[in-house]
Amino acid sequence: MDHTKNYEIIRINGDSKILEEDLVVVETAFTIFIDGEEIITILSSPKALKELCVGYIFSEGWVEKLEDIKNIDLDLINSTAHIDLEKASGLDESFRRKKSIASSGGKASLFSNLLDSLKSQKIKEPLKLDLEIVKKNMIDFNRRSELFQKTGGVHSCGLYFQDEMLVFEEDIGRHNALDKIIGRALLDRIDLEDKMVLTSGRVSSEILIKIAKRGISTIVSMSAPTNLAIELAKELSINLLGFVRGERLNIYTNLEDYK
Amino acid sequence: MDHTKNYEIIRINGDSKILEEDLVVVETAFTIFIDGEEIITILSSPKALKELCVGYIFSEGWVEKLEDIKNIDLDLINSTAHIDLEKASGLDESFRRKKSIASSGGKASLFSNLLDSLKSQKIKEPLKLDLEIVKKNMIDFNRRSELFQKTGGVHSCGLYFQDEMLVFEEDIGRHNALDKIIGRALLDRIDLEDKMVLTSGRVSSEILIKIAKRGISTIVSMSAPTNLAIELAKELSINLLGFVRGERLNIYTNLEDYK
Repeated sequence: MDHTKNYEIIRINGDSKILEEDLVVVETAFTIFIDGEEIITILSSPKALKELCVGYIFSEGWVEKLEDIKNIDLDLINSTAHIDLEKASGLDESFRRKKSIASSGGKASLFSNLLDSLKSQKIKEPLKLDLEIVKKNMIDFNRRSELFQKTGGVHSCGLYFQDEMLVFEEDIGRHNALDKIIGRALLDRIDLEDKMVLTSGRVSSEILIKIAKRGISTIVSMSAPTNLAIELAKELSINLLGFVRGERLNIYTNLEDYK
Repeated sequence: MDHTKNYEIIRINGDSKILEEDLVVVETAFTIFIDGEEIITILSSPKALKELCVGYIFSEGWVEKLEDIKNIDLDLINSTAHIDLEKASGLDESFRRKKSIASSGGKASLFSNLLDSLKSQKIKEPLKLDLEIVKKNMIDFNRRSELFQKTGGVHSCGLYFQDEMLVFEEDIGRHNALDKIIGRALLDRIDLEDKMVLTSGRVSSEILIKIAKRGISTIVSMSAPTNLAIELAKELSINLLGFVRGERLNIYTNLEDYK
């Protein structure tokens, strides 16, 4: 399926009015079924859908390791993935249990329980970054953002080991772009602990949680983090860098390593 | 609750390295309960949370009119809203029914059923826009984006009637910012048909669906639309404008009105 599509538009610039073809980013409604049950429809770019569904089911806690997946049947015509699991995921079960406790207690939400459970994921030894490599990687990363340059409509995500780009993906959703990177890394059995994730998008708590769950030590963004992302990254000793643009960057966590 | 928070960061610019305070946008985990049941945790900016929960439950089809809401109990300390409904929403019931049909049939997803059900929402008479007003509104809109200017971390959404700004909201999520606008309009019983929504964010199908469900005739973005948003807007005769920046703008739908 094409990643962009031409549309006839009217382009206005001051008094000039031109009817012309314009390239627009394609959005697909991609539906995931697990063991025959419809789980979710993800609105995404029709690219790396296998990576997306693998990354998604890991991020959501449906599976813990690649061996938990018995089979993935990807149907690109109907934009569906039918996934069979070896057994129901333990993680998911414990989430469900936590949820019912939270509801009966009436105080803590599912989300705050999730935060609690993350606290065990602290990075043992924070990775001390070479900031020149971070800046160099961001320049490389920007150069690769092809769909964005064409359409202005997508986010990118990249996985780097030192100054080497291992995986690069784009998607209309910044969460999807990250799930695709994670999915590819899982499929290729790439160890993530010493890797660096670059993103074009803002770093919210949800992005940080995906990073933490996979034990990734560093997240680098072109854009801004939220306070909740900073709090979590501090708690877990994850390197969080933002507004990385040319010679500029902000370091939000593990400050003692860079003073 | 404050909307921004100060963090100590290290700011790098070339060879300069400064330890300083930086303003970061606050993200709250806001949990909505309906009739005692935990429905969702929305990660959002802690501002206009009543608007957010009202907009959200309308957008998701839990309620159809303001009278369907018996009571909203907003707890700003714990960031929760407990909503009591007059009765279970008809819309939600029909969604559930559609879902089970889709799953047994194994073909159409919940999402494609939603698209089908939207087709009845076609705008009867497309609103012909004065493009000078659109440009003027976008300039006004940009000037109001206070949180973004401080933190670089939020999206804005505005509701305009001709050149008058009626509602303006910001949020770390572009969906939330739109839900807040819709929530405020519903609470104030503002008729939406002849209004214009401005957004800083990209226009995906989800954004377009929220617009269509409320019968809003015009959506204007600083940024890009996806093809699915264009297709839906064409089908429903909604005005969709993108990349509105200074004297420039793109018109994606109802082209015959502007030729």
